[in-house]
Amino acid sequence: MSRRILGVDIGGTSIKLGAILVEERPRVVAKDVVEAPASRDPGSALDETAASLERLVARAGWPRAEGVGVGCAGLVRRDGTLAYSPNLPGWAGVPLKDGLEMRTRLPVRVDNDANAFALAEWRWGAARGMSDVVFLTLGTGIGGAFLAGGRLVRGVSGFAGEPGHATLVLDGAPCACGNRGCAERYVGNKDLVEAARRHPEFADDALLRGLREPRDLSLAAERGSRVAAFVLAQAGRALGGLLVTLVNAFDPELVVVGGGVALAGDRLLDPARAHLAERSFVARHGAVRVAAAALGSEAGLLGSAGLVLEESFATAG
Amino acid sequence: MSRRILGVDIGGTSIKLGAILVEERPRVVAKDVVEAPASRDPGSALDETAASLERLVARAGWPRAEGVGVGCAGLVRRDGTLAYSPNLPGWAGVPLKDGLEMRTRLPVRVDNDANAFALAEWRWGAARGMSDVVFLTLGTGIGGAFLAGGRLVRGVSGFAGEPGHATLVLDGAPCACGNRGCAERYVGNKDLVEAARRHPEFADDALLRGLREPRDLSLAAERGSRVAAFVLAQAGRALGGLLVTLVNAFDPELVVVGGGVALAGDRLLDPARAHLAERSFVARHGAVRVAAAALGSEAGLLGSAGLVLEESFATAG
Repeated sequence: MSRRILGVDIGGTSIKLGAILVEERPRVVAKDVVEAPASRDPGSALDETAASLERLVARAGWPRAEGVGVGCAGLVRRDGTLAYSPNLPGWAGVPLKDGLEMRTRLPVRVDNDANAFALAEWRWGAARGMSDVVFLTLGTGIGGAFLAGGRLVRGVSGFAGEPGHATLVLDGAPCACGNRGCAERYVGNKDLVEAARRHPEFADDALLRGLREPRDLSLAAERGSRVAAFVLAQAGRALGGLLVTLVNAFDPELVVVGGGVALAGDRLLDPARAHLAERSFVARHGAVRVAAAALGSEAGLLGSAGLVLEESFATAG
Repeated sequence: MSRRILGVDIGGTSIKLGAILVEERPRVVAKDVVEAPASRDPGSALDETAASLERLVARAGWPRAEGVGVGCAGLVRRDGTLAYSPNLPGWAGVPLKDGLEMRTRLPVRVDNDANAFALAEWRWGAARGMSDVVFLTLGTGIGGAFLAGGRLVRGVSGFAGEPGHATLVLDGAPCACGNRGCAERYVGNKDLVEAARRHPEFADDALLRGLREPRDLSLAAERGSRVAAFVLAQAGRALGGLLVTLVNAFDPELVVVGGGVALAGDRLLDPARAHLAERSFVARHGAVRVAAAALGSEAGLLGSAGLVLEESFATAG
């Protein structure tokens, strides 16, 4: 049976939208973007989102869509209200579910964007059929979701799953969340690029001209950049420190690592795996693997659509 | 209906045993101790345990007990085998369930000791009726258990729930588990006492003569010891750093803190609460409280017995 679902992935820099046809696997048949939501009035951004969704249905040639799934960065209440998002400071308190249901006249499900990512990787990606999985998305920050005994850990207010703000260095570098030494300050996008720029040999390293994102570091490292190799190894070890915490807490079968920073690949993941194997007694006696996400950059959008499908772990509770 | 259950709490320094009558609340009607299991042959320690359990049934005046519940420090496999325990190095691989069933001819349930503690506090103590709770036992090490959506987080091998070995200081003080900078190195029993002894004013502090355990620090702090107050505040802040990690991961309604170190009371918990309130954005937007355990030093034994009761969260999965 094929199903026609609209997916919305709300982040700090853009809102990604897609018309998604789910058969055995999901496929984005039409897509669109609403730019710079952080700097706009939420009401007008939702107006534009709803208008775009209507156009997507027309472009897909559908009579109608059966529902809208929304993944949003930040703390999403169980009633579909955004309580707080560091990347969308003006959006605190916005009723995403009610606001989009009113505008689209379709049923809307809203969840944290990392929960949506996890749902996609669990349904169609690297974690298919598994019951105990830690999901991480490494981007500007670190998002996460925890599948325990086949059910997503949600917490009493729906705010569970923020491993990026685990204390990794007590009283370390300040973080926008109010803590110091958060894991994401040692593995995040900007921090990796800044660490490379701060390196004393950066200016002399021709391979790092035009450095913009962690994937550039990976390419430079392949070509022999010592600075890039050093920065990735250091970030990999910090990621490993976070993995020790999470594996000792959850004893998962798999850790799925996705997001832009994960595109740096095994140059980042191998030092993390080595650190985990050396430092976690649960990993030594358990059965955990660390793998890159399988669905690439569309995982968030596909997972948002997945929220509308029934019987998904993410909709429990 | 009253139920007659035997409880066994296996730690590194002693095995505590009890005949426990469970009516509306549980009551230890007879108890015993097997000393120093870490330095003994596991087989003979289990022989002695079984013999003691038989005597407890007689002393309680019971015709028989309906079963035996066992809580054990370390990584306990789902089949009731102890995979690894830092405090019982010679016991790795010991089949606790089969070994005690053979010796007692009673049904035996085995679980991690912190899971047993959590079960007791959930059934009869501070966390009654709650569905999202983080449990910590602060003793020689830090044990833990996580209740998420009404079910205990168990992990794929049954090893989940080791918050004491969360990385709190990347590349910090070495820990017996193989990691560095584990949370329990900054909040554990021995480490608090050692921190006081290392303090430059320790020798001049008459209030700290005969210091043996964290409770002594609390008493000394009440009487005006600056060293004791300093050490407890510092440990409380480290505990707070761990709480930030756990609250941001689990968004619980309550954190229950038990174990010997927790007897230091609010001198330890208040700085932890303050650190959590300041540093966790989930705590700021959520609904978490931090409370001392309600059942005191018998919680472990009561929880072990609780493993035998049906419909307990700890026996799921």
